[in-house]
Amino acid sequence: MQIEEFRAHGHQVIDWIADYLGTIESRPVLSQVEPGAIRAALPAHPPEEPESFDAVLADVDRIILPGITHWQHPAFFAYFPANASGPAILGDLLSSGLGVQGMLWATSPACTELEQLSLDWLAEMLGLPATFRSDGKGGGVIQDTASTSALVALLAALHRASGGATAERGIAAGRYTVYASTEAHSSVEKAVRMAGLGAAALRTIPADPKTLAMSPAALRDQLAADIEAGFTPAMIVATIGTTSTTAIDPVRDIGAIAREHNTWLHIDAAYAGVAAICPELRWILDGVADFADSFGTNPHKWLLTNFDCHAFWVADRAHLLGALSILPEYLRNAATASGDVVDYRDWHIQLGRRFRALKLWSVIRCYGISGLQHHIRTHVALAQEFAGWVAADNRFEITAPHPLSLVCFRLRADDDRNLELMQKLNSSGELYLTHTKVGGTVSLRLAIGGTLTERRHVERAWALIQAV
Amino acid sequence: MQIEEFRAHGHQVIDWIADYLGTIESRPVLSQVEPGAIRAALPAHPPEEPESFDAVLADVDRIILPGITHWQHPAFFAYFPANASGPAILGDLLSSGLGVQGMLWATSPACTELEQLSLDWLAEMLGLPATFRSDGKGGGVIQDTASTSALVALLAALHRASGGATAERGIAAGRYTVYASTEAHSSVEKAVRMAGLGAAALRTIPADPKTLAMSPAALRDQLAADIEAGFTPAMIVATIGTTSTTAIDPVRDIGAIAREHNTWLHIDAAYAGVAAICPELRWILDGVADFADSFGTNPHKWLLTNFDCHAFWVADRAHLLGALSILPEYLRNAATASGDVVDYRDWHIQLGRRFRALKLWSVIRCYGISGLQHHIRTHVALAQEFAGWVAADNRFEITAPHPLSLVCFRLRADDDRNLELMQKLNSSGELYLTHTKVGGTVSLRLAIGGTLTERRHVERAWALIQAV
Repeated sequence: MQIEEFRAHGHQVIDWIADYLGTIESRPVLSQVEPGAIRAALPAHPPEEPESFDAVLADVDRIILPGITHWQHPAFFAYFPANASGPAILGDLLSSGLGVQGMLWATSPACTELEQLSLDWLAEMLGLPATFRSDGKGGGVIQDTASTSALVALLAALHRASGGATAERGIAAGRYTVYASTEAHSSVEKAVRMAGLGAAALRTIPADPKTLAMSPAALRDQLAADIEAGFTPAMIVATIGTTSTTAIDPVRDIGAIAREHNTWLHIDAAYAGVAAICPELRWILDGVADFADSFGTNPHKWLLTNFDCHAFWVADRAHLLGALSILPEYLRNAATASGDVVDYRDWHIQLGRRFRALKLWSVIRCYGISGLQHHIRTHVALAQEFAGWVAADNRFEITAPHPLSLVCFRLRADDDRNLELMQKLNSSGELYLTHTKVGGTVSLRLAIGGTLTERRHVERAWALIQAV
Repeated sequence: MQIEEFRAHGHQVIDWIADYLGTIESRPVLSQVEPGAIRAALPAHPPEEPESFDAVLADVDRIILPGITHWQHPAFFAYFPANASGPAILGDLLSSGLGVQGMLWATSPACTELEQLSLDWLAEMLGLPATFRSDGKGGGVIQDTASTSALVALLAALHRASGGATAERGIAAGRYTVYASTEAHSSVEKAVRMAGLGAAALRTIPADPKTLAMSPAALRDQLAADIEAGFTPAMIVATIGTTSTTAIDPVRDIGAIAREHNTWLHIDAAYAGVAAICPELRWILDGVADFADSFGTNPHKWLLTNFDCHAFWVADRAHLLGALSILPEYLRNAATASGDVVDYRDWHIQLGRRFRALKLWSVIRCYGISGLQHHIRTHVALAQEFAGWVAADNRFEITAPHPLSLVCFRLRADDDRNLELMQKLNSSGELYLTHTKVGGTVSLRLAIGGTLTERRHVERAWALIQAV
């Protein structure tokens, strides 16, 4: 494709996206296709000769779109939304156009320095401590997802717990233990498995049945028992905003216990963390500044930055670098040797890296702190309003605290009836929500976070739920 | 940003990229800024109020561009290029616009099915065996990078070697061993460390001093010694196209040895693998069809697909899924329960995933097999021509075989003189190349792979090298 063709087709794609987002409400939220249908509509073999980009775009309309579950639809209330925005899409497009790979500072200094700046900005916006800033002992980096950041945090934690021995000698099975609440995300178990500890090393700590937050007393007991039994606690994961219900673990109490045992404290604030941009919600991070060794939150979930963009900080980067640095000859360069620069390849699993800071920087600038606060506040207010409607209808009950933008509720009926209700709503195409289990029984989850979601969409959702 | 503003700014960004690529030759390839300069030019604190996207774009021009090392510059000959193209950028833009997250089939069926199709297409184009296709026991998935795929392959290998025990019980330090040549990429050691084996578990097998390919005899001896000593060999990594010199390990011989010991064979063909699209180059994959358990190559390096896009296949997905599957309640859904669909979250480290197949599919369609073959052949031919010029100048010598598009060479002088030559060339801004060590001494690497690179750029590079 020559440059002028790119220009012409580029304008076409921009118009396509603008039209798509402008008419997205006319589509069913949840794709209604059967397994295999999309694939069956496409040629089994690759084309020998070039096709036009017009043909590609026509197939996106005709074949791909019916197979899309529309995450940007204003009635997408499932999982946690992954909200995108114009500034993010365009920042990401600039990144694609530049096509740089920022594994080393030298391979594009701006890629590294804009990332440091953007994460320092975000740390400031969230009220994170100075230790997490790039000009201190710690620093921030963009990872792809919270799952990866749980793994990276664990590798750093194991490096610290072993005095650096794991990098060379590996994991002694049955020695290290990791702690998270029963409500923690599955990525913690996945990280524990990937790091070589095995799932058996994960201690799931009971949560308070009412708040669904980790019980510090139970954590303390489990740690004592494990230490007594000869285990070395390597990491505690506290969750701020669990996936199931947005429960908030008591970080301050957990942190004090972690400190006592010199155990790494990682904070998984994937969804909720960004809400701390609003001063009135900053209480969710209580204890983080004093105790967290690492902290992660997803601008790609609730901060208008398109997937993928997970912001990850460490209070002391030494253990992260100790766990992940390797310098082969072909990556040696004067800037790295000088020690004056950060080479982000040492901060994550990958070597190569995309210039993702452009989209985050673009979002922060184009919304400003005030715009981002407004965005978060609107969703939280809508969720509170929705919860009020549910509470006022005695056919339903609220099943968990809802301090943020997720409301868990259920029909006062058995699990099957609730799942049936969900299935009917979702297959209507008018909205999409998912379920979880709270205290052993099915709850429906309505998560408000779409860029295009307005009050009328939440009203409509509630009307549909009542009707079905 | 409202939709019509997005449309207007989107057109602006497309024009910006077209103009950037159209004038890229006027820029110095390697950024000439000092550490900290980019950051110092930007505000220390985030803006309270929204700024216009025009202001962002103006700062990209004024502040960011001087800090860019231009990977898409036709005189970028460093590392391996990461070539992008119009169809890829636009496919990726469509992905950003759709903003879907394909962790489960259900969360956008097209995201999963188009990825399966695209990787089946690519497998067919490379002549990979039917076992790697999604309709058999194996299948392909897009990972971000070859580093991640080395880790994922190792986790699957450990799952198989342990009979599934590692997922639950973890790694017994000092039990498992991993094999790769001294020329293998640093990501192998990184994977070995991340998986909890520790670097000590990595056996680096000598390479033939002339071909720089792994010595099967040395591999056999090392395996025998390790088994004798009680170790369990978990994985052998054979490299097709090493980073240093594009050496090609003898996969067929290595594969036979792996088979004998029932050891997982992973093929790292990050750079070179895609060259097998050309029938006359398909010999580089000899042995893969018969012996490989997993295989990875980077369309984001040499197949015109912008970063990130690493194509990864397994011959039998059971071990991959065994190592990585976890199903919490909030991800349960009818399609997953039916067993009729693939949920790609079980195929990699992340849970969430971007719709990356769009860009790869777009590239394959818009170039066609013939166009992609032409692209590879042009670079290989240019590299051979360049090597001829070097060989004909007795001040220089070729230092390694160059079957593909990378040429390693040196001044017949000491290392310092060679590094000085490189430094002068790079600081001229007219081209960018990097170095490695071959047989203990410094070689310069000229890697031809830019989308915009033509014969005249290689001629000019050689003229500059001669002049300096």
